[in-house]
Amino acid sequence: MKIDIITVLPELLESPLNHSIMKRAQDKGLLNVKTYNLRQWAVNKYGQVDDYQYGGGAGMVMMCEPLANAIDTLQKDTKYDEIIYLTPDGITFNQKIANALSLKENLLLICGHYKGIDERIRQQYVTMEISIGDYVLSGGELAAAVLVDAVGRLLPGVLNDETSALFDSFQDDLLAPPVYTRPADFRGLKVPEVLLNGNPKIIDEWRYEQSVERTRNRRPDMLDKPDVLDKA
Amino acid sequence: MKIDIITVLPELLESPLNHSIMKRAQDKGLLNVKTYNLRQWAVNKYGQVDDYQYGGGAGMVMMCEPLANAIDTLQKDTKYDEIIYLTPDGITFNQKIANALSLKENLLLICGHYKGIDERIRQQYVTMEISIGDYVLSGGELAAAVLVDAVGRLLPGVLNDETSALFDSFQDDLLAPPVYTRPADFRGLKVPEVLLNGNPKIIDEWRYEQSVERTRNRRPDMLDKPDVLDKA
Repeated sequence: MKIDIITVLPELLESPLNHSIMKRAQDKGLLNVKTYNLRQWAVNKYGQVDDYQYGGGAGMVMMCEPLANAIDTLQKDTKYDEIIYLTPDGITFNQKIANALSLKENLLLICGHYKGIDERIRQQYVTMEISIGDYVLSGGELAAAVLVDAVGRLLPGVLNDETSALFDSFQDDLLAPPVYTRPADFRGLKVPEVLLNGNPKIIDEWRYEQSVERTRNRRPDMLDKPDVLDKA
Repeated sequence: MKIDIITVLPELLESPLNHSIMKRAQDKGLLNVKTYNLRQWAVNKYGQVDDYQYGGGAGMVMMCEPLANAIDTLQKDTKYDEIIYLTPDGITFNQKIANALSLKENLLLICGHYKGIDERIRQQYVTMEISIGDYVLSGGELAAAVLVDAVGRLLPGVLNDETSALFDSFQDDLLAPPVYTRPADFRGLKVPEVLLNGNPKIIDEWRYEQSVERTRNRRPDMLDKPDVLDKA
């Protein structure tokens, strides 16, 4: 899978893309992430890529021309399955979207900054607008890093133990059950007996009950969907 | 504001914390973010901080002892307003939580990894559990970076133009209106006339209408709350 990222701050993405699981995915040749500095396509020698917004008001807007030229240039080499703009007013990212995107070949991500990008680029070029949550960030870079991580770890072969991702929160529309490791008694706090002495079937049942209970307590909205509890 | 972060991957956080607005906030002395490598408190000389989970199954669990010792040590110097564990089954982060946290003095963030941290640490130490969205990441580091950015940019003096954050998406429970900048005609695509020739009052009205329409189309759930549309 190839993910290209257009940003005014490629240096902000350096450490998230080059450590841990994202590094491993790239070292294994499973994921190819490249950042492109939008200022390469600036409208003048001062590197300008933004300007005041029409109608007045605080905050700059990212201009059409640099973005259009950047996308046009990158599209000459790559046919993108999706051109994704990270923005607080996009569709809310979730595990289902991560799963769907992990099946694509080529993605282009556009990181906004300041007040965002000129609406005309959204209308003409962008095929998908994604928000990672109902909050505002300084720019789209961290949102892009989150998307790359959430999608990248789903690619077959990226995680050491492929079964691991299947039992994450959200993969079956339930939150994950509580987990414990040694020691069995930590400062008087004990691990539930069932995990120490239960057989695999009883442990599976306990975990499922814990998942359902935790989801009911914390995220009843996740149980509203019709068939969630029929799957087990 | 001081934010301490306990992580097994401090290097992953380097570039997000040291560029752009987070750098400016720290340079100005408005925000003090420090990462602490959990392996300092490892249980043996091999740096072990995780172990197999009780009851079996894929994925490691972060052990009680290193985390308890790390938190105990840091608490000697700082009284934390909240000890926050970043986890997919936490409460969903949003702009209201960001606003509330931006008023605190000292936060301690714990980044999980693998299958997460031992449940007993959650019960004994953690005061708040936050998820940045309904998706799973390789670890809590990017979630911590997102939280630091969303909260940090709200601190007075961090953004160049303080009025800017007030007009972001979510601050008034509406998505932001579309924005445009020069040129007025880009490859035949024109900026709405009202932004070019309208007076400030008419432009404000247009933006409010666009905000409401965009929210109605994209996020009708945001309009369900009773008094959203009475504010204008």
